[in-house]
Amino acid sequence: MKKVVTIGGGTGSFTLLSGLKKYPIDLSAIVSMADDGGSTGVLRDELGVLPPGDVRQCLVALSDSSEKLRELMNYRFTEGGLSGHSFGNLFLSALEKIEGGFTAGVAEAAKILNVKGEVIPVTATDTSLKVKLKNGKILSGEHEINTSLAVGKVGVEKVFLDPVAKGNPRAREKILEADLIVIGPGNHYCSIIPNFLVNGIAQSIKKSQAKVVYNCNLVNKRGHTDGYTLERYVKEIEDFIGVDRIDFVTFNTRLPAKKIMERYNKENGELVSFEANERLSRRYRVFQADLLSRCGVENRPGDTLAATRSFIRHDAEKLAKMLMMVLELGEYESIIKDIV
Amino acid sequence: MKKVVTIGGGTGSFTLLSGLKKYPIDLSAIVSMADDGGSTGVLRDELGVLPPGDVRQCLVALSDSSEKLRELMNYRFTEGGLSGHSFGNLFLSALEKIEGGFTAGVAEAAKILNVKGEVIPVTATDTSLKVKLKNGKILSGEHEINTSLAVGKVGVEKVFLDPVAKGNPRAREKILEADLIVIGPGNHYCSIIPNFLVNGIAQSIKKSQAKVVYNCNLVNKRGHTDGYTLERYVKEIEDFIGVDRIDFVTFNTRLPAKKIMERYNKENGELVSFEANERLSRRYRVFQADLLSRCGVENRPGDTLAATRSFIRHDAEKLAKMLMMVLELGEYESIIKDIV
Repeated sequence: MKKVVTIGGGTGSFTLLSGLKKYPIDLSAIVSMADDGGSTGVLRDELGVLPPGDVRQCLVALSDSSEKLRELMNYRFTEGGLSGHSFGNLFLSALEKIEGGFTAGVAEAAKILNVKGEVIPVTATDTSLKVKLKNGKILSGEHEINTSLAVGKVGVEKVFLDPVAKGNPRAREKILEADLIVIGPGNHYCSIIPNFLVNGIAQSIKKSQAKVVYNCNLVNKRGHTDGYTLERYVKEIEDFIGVDRIDFVTFNTRLPAKKIMERYNKENGELVSFEANERLSRRYRVFQADLLSRCGVENRPGDTLAATRSFIRHDAEKLAKMLMMVLELGEYESIIKDIV
Repeated sequence: MKKVVTIGGGTGSFTLLSGLKKYPIDLSAIVSMADDGGSTGVLRDELGVLPPGDVRQCLVALSDSSEKLRELMNYRFTEGGLSGHSFGNLFLSALEKIEGGFTAGVAEAAKILNVKGEVIPVTATDTSLKVKLKNGKILSGEHEINTSLAVGKVGVEKVFLDPVAKGNPRAREKILEADLIVIGPGNHYCSIIPNFLVNGIAQSIKKSQAKVVYNCNLVNKRGHTDGYTLERYVKEIEDFIGVDRIDFVTFNTRLPAKKIMERYNKENGELVSFEANERLSRRYRVFQADLLSRCGVENRPGDTLAATRSFIRHDAEKLAKMLMMVLELGEYESIIKDIV
């Protein structure tokens, strides 16, 4: 079986893994561990556990359990002292306590949830994501960074982890063995970049013989990546890896419905653009296709995931099909709209 | 398959069901719903859910899941805002919210935990256990009753549920179909009696063709049942059922180790006695045997169950074997020490 490693975090990984798990591949999900907001933040502070939120989403995506168990994992309490806690986060935190470590807790959770593939926290170091802005100010923690508009306005001088985080040996091993490494989609500074800041991860990607594909985000995040093009995303990621390592990029060509776009422009950012006229100078190949989800997001009370997903998002099946094509180049050519 | 219905609650049911589940019988556990202390009490107050604690213990006892999942269900958080909450209680409360009802939540939990048999909350009415003492004072809620020494000192005039609770139709159905109904062991006023106060339960026991066996407690609870004999337990239970319905009683003859007895006498109560000279006037048969557990109880942090179990308790396998003998009278005669 071909070995596919995903690198990301948050709801982007959820979508990606939900699609990929249906294919007969050896699938490993490397997950960012920088989250410190909401339920996850409270559990980090009060129980001294590592952030469970991103790992939970990946476990649920890869779970072959009943729909009900998966729904339960994303359930969020809305009343009393438990208010805001995701049940799945409590599940992972209790298992971390019982097993005496986050990695062992995640492995046990994977068994209980009948997970296909492996979910690998990128690090077991209790660390915090920091952004030093060009004006010298330091933003501390994913939550503060995520909600600050200064990231894009003032500009980023440096992104780093404090303290320095040691790469999970299992993550490094899986990257070295991989046939395909899939980066993104996901929150650029808060879910994607933090993975490359962990010691040993970028080095392993450099050394690996795997093809590397980047799933370009659909929209720019207001106050973070305003005006970013596909090219800029790729360049920043390669700067963090330390070498030009991206072989392929997937890019959505389908425009969202006008109603959704209007709502989105008001609240968030604009669609990512793509400098198609630069095709000749580009080292990596860009696969363009309709990768857009047509499903509306229902906002049910207590459903963690729906509340955090954006209105414009990838379609899990289309994205997975595209990536399988990248993996088995040629077999799936009929679905390619254009290769630049 | 022979149909066995247990009636009880708390750790007594846990022991009983842990033993019975190994036999090829159709097993249903009817569980008291009067708990309002600790984690259960907080969840009742804050989330408006029904008390999950007793049901959780029965589900875990009957679960065929991994040891780890069962350990997780009994894990209790010890820090921060979650402190005191049993993970299993949160699990049941979240499922009650998702399913829109406690009974449906329990059914879903049973599926996830791969439960052998059926766990049936005796009622879905949100009710409170009350004790009216002989001095007119009313104790309200299982927690207050359980911790009050006045129950035994002043004496009980009346035990009742407020508001009146409607019997779970499934509980009534199972009682009517049963070959054997097993009452206890368990906390007399807080886990056993409350079941008979629920509308329709005593009536169903009266109507049922089942044999009825009562597992007599090993020790009297200080301030509740001081000086109680086997005969008095039987009489009180039959008074609550409203008819002399008990056919058999199991009674432990093995004395606990001296060291354990000393500790127990100081903190709790004395062993239940048995007026053997009244054998001729007794309507029910008493099966005496060594039913005592020899295992010490480890008190691990976070292990809900160990913290609430008494030092002198039934051995799950011995008790189950005895009950199977009662069910298939004759087949197991060799283990009977004495039939009075």
